[in-house]
Amino acid sequence: MASPAVSSRARLIQASPIRKLTPLADAAKKRGIEVFHLNIGQPDIPTPSDYWDAMSRRTPQVLAYGPSVGIPELRQGICSYYRRAGIDVQPANVMVTSGGSEAVIFAMMAVCDDGGEVVCFEPFYTNYNGFATMAGVKLVPVSSRVEDGFHLPPDEAIEKVINDRTRAILICNPNNPTGTVLTAGELDRLAGICTRRNLFLLADEVYRDFTFDGRVHKSTLELAGMEDRVIVMDSISKRFSSCGARLGNIVCRNAEAMDGMGRFGQARLCPPTLAQYGAAYMYENLHEEYFADVARTYQNRRDVLVSELEGVEGVFFLKPEGAFYATIRIPVDDSDRFAAWMLDEFSFDRMTTMVAPAAGFYATPGLGTDEIRIAYVLKEDNMRTALAVLREGLKAYPGRKVR
Amino acid sequence: MASPAVSSRARLIQASPIRKLTPLADAAKKRGIEVFHLNIGQPDIPTPSDYWDAMSRRTPQVLAYGPSVGIPELRQGICSYYRRAGIDVQPANVMVTSGGSEAVIFAMMAVCDDGGEVVCFEPFYTNYNGFATMAGVKLVPVSSRVEDGFHLPPDEAIEKVINDRTRAILICNPNNPTGTVLTAGELDRLAGICTRRNLFLLADEVYRDFTFDGRVHKSTLELAGMEDRVIVMDSISKRFSSCGARLGNIVCRNAEAMDGMGRFGQARLCPPTLAQYGAAYMYENLHEEYFADVARTYQNRRDVLVSELEGVEGVFFLKPEGAFYATIRIPVDDSDRFAAWMLDEFSFDRMTTMVAPAAGFYATPGLGTDEIRIAYVLKEDNMRTALAVLREGLKAYPGRKVR
Repeated sequence: MASPAVSSRARLIQASPIRKLTPLADAAKKRGIEVFHLNIGQPDIPTPSDYWDAMSRRTPQVLAYGPSVGIPELRQGICSYYRRAGIDVQPANVMVTSGGSEAVIFAMMAVCDDGGEVVCFEPFYTNYNGFATMAGVKLVPVSSRVEDGFHLPPDEAIEKVINDRTRAILICNPNNPTGTVLTAGELDRLAGICTRRNLFLLADEVYRDFTFDGRVHKSTLELAGMEDRVIVMDSISKRFSSCGARLGNIVCRNAEAMDGMGRFGQARLCPPTLAQYGAAYMYENLHEEYFADVARTYQNRRDVLVSELEGVEGVFFLKPEGAFYATIRIPVDDSDRFAAWMLDEFSFDRMTTMVAPAAGFYATPGLGTDEIRIAYVLKEDNMRTALAVLREGLKAYPGRKVR
Repeated sequence: MASPAVSSRARLIQASPIRKLTPLADAAKKRGIEVFHLNIGQPDIPTPSDYWDAMSRRTPQVLAYGPSVGIPELRQGICSYYRRAGIDVQPANVMVTSGGSEAVIFAMMAVCDDGGEVVCFEPFYTNYNGFATMAGVKLVPVSSRVEDGFHLPPDEAIEKVINDRTRAILICNPNNPTGTVLTAGELDRLAGICTRRNLFLLADEVYRDFTFDGRVHKSTLELAGMEDRVIVMDSISKRFSSCGARLGNIVCRNAEAMDGMGRFGQARLCPPTLAQYGAAYMYENLHEEYFADVARTYQNRRDVLVSELEGVEGVFFLKPEGAFYATIRIPVDDSDRFAAWMLDEFSFDRMTTMVAPAAGFYATPGLGTDEIRIAYVLKEDNMRTALAVLREGLKAYPGRKVR
């Protein structure tokens, strides 16, 4: 008898468009080519030494399970972080998760059953697709455009796709993959729609400390009257350059939703124990200066991106406002092919640049095929070189196409 | 307008029956009562110092994402562990997960879509309920009985519940919550059913190193002809007393299933990075002597359990064969009430004992109400005291009822 069939979700879940070209990059490296990684949001900022120190002070005899919702120190530390930003959050509103990833899937599962729908704005963080497939949730895209700096489309475009299966609107602010920071006015519009249509607002705010040009991030936690509707998904991965710690959290004032997510958490027992001591220490002790310093670093790299790519023929984007991403239009037939070609066939002075094709960040077929996502996570000098190499690649690419 | 409704899964997912009495235990401790925790499988065996040493040798500048399927050293280390047991497993068959919990939910999702059914033997590890609710999977219980030492019921009882929605049989071997170790003959029977009915066999083997009285654990990975059907779910939590590390793994030779689970893994990026170095070192360097020593420790505690409870009026169980659990019948009206009463009202010399009511480990309503699960995770002296206190409690309990 044949093998048993795997599930549809196992067959259909996407391969990460950020990681799928990695075998080509590995092959290029084997050929002696230096590859600049602008494809993945892995910061090169050192993890604060406070993290390691705090953990080593707490090394236990037995590395035991912790509380399902996280250790009290860390939940308290997250409240302190918000209090410094003028946002009142209590430990009961905070649940620690295994990475921001688990926060997203818990939130999706808390608001949707199988077949439930969540409205999101494409391009969006591609892994939302994976979580949605796993959870049986349908992501319903509303397109935003590079010409608008990927700011929100009009209310009508959003309300048009809302139906009786819709449970939530999902945003990422500051945005991965576009670097867009929503204005207070845009957030108010979303609050209005969620209230009129009785929806949750799921907000991925992992990049909230990284805003540029004096912008102040407004959290969905600050939206008056939305206390029962907002679920914030967060993480220490980018905030404290600790991607490998796998610590995220949920912030939510809706007691019923928190209770359900808390029981999701009981099923998987607990997030990593020891790392939470490190995270708690960072939340209590790294303050405005730390964040200002990191944001300035990213802003300088953003400036390098702008100065190296602005005015290049066929390249178009508006100045990114936060996070450390930009989604830019490039003069190619197909950015999937271009990104592969850069690794497979192109090199300049034995160097090449790896980017993420943008189609994987769109849900509507055909969109994003002339766009790429760039993560500006390298030091300024390396950024400059990587982007010069990218420019050379754009010139030499056989499928070059200026629209 | 009212708050938006949370999902059915968020409303319906169970609270952990292992953890739900914790507030009562906390209150007892506040009253100055010493509480012996026989309710939760948190071993008191020290985490090997090798774990901390290996990690501190690898502290990186940037705590970065690792590969979605785990670092090569750890996948290789797990292969070495199996090779020493005479089982051939390649790194391509191994995927590292965030705890055994994630291994279970990935496996369930890989074989079932929403509404898919998985046959399991009750009593079973209660958190399977939570994962199934999250994944939209229906667990279909087949009862095993304390009189049979919780060994498998006849084939007919199992085949009777298999229908065209059934995708897999799920076992835990050695068993949590019963301590039962399946015989080679029982595993062959399951292989026969899975082959005849074209099902996957999901095997939670996290306790495979802990077998007693000379028993040798037979892994489902050793079942000839079952290579495409077996998905093993595993963890370092109990093996290396590292529950808080949150590292588990999947072993599976079905390439399509591995590929799907690998893409589930890409969505959540990676398991904790640094802990994997510690785990890899333990897998390569802790050998038979380490496991023999730990298994002997648990066997001695098992012996204490047997000598302290055998022959007590109204108490019945067969000698546990592995893991560190026993599910035992006790002379009470309702074990939920009894367990709460032990914390709430009873004490003996200012001590009490916390146990897990067994009903939470059954899916069939009404079963397990005269049973408790005991985790023998305390030192022998403490075990002896905890069980003496339990005996006193059974004598004094107002709802005492000898059947």
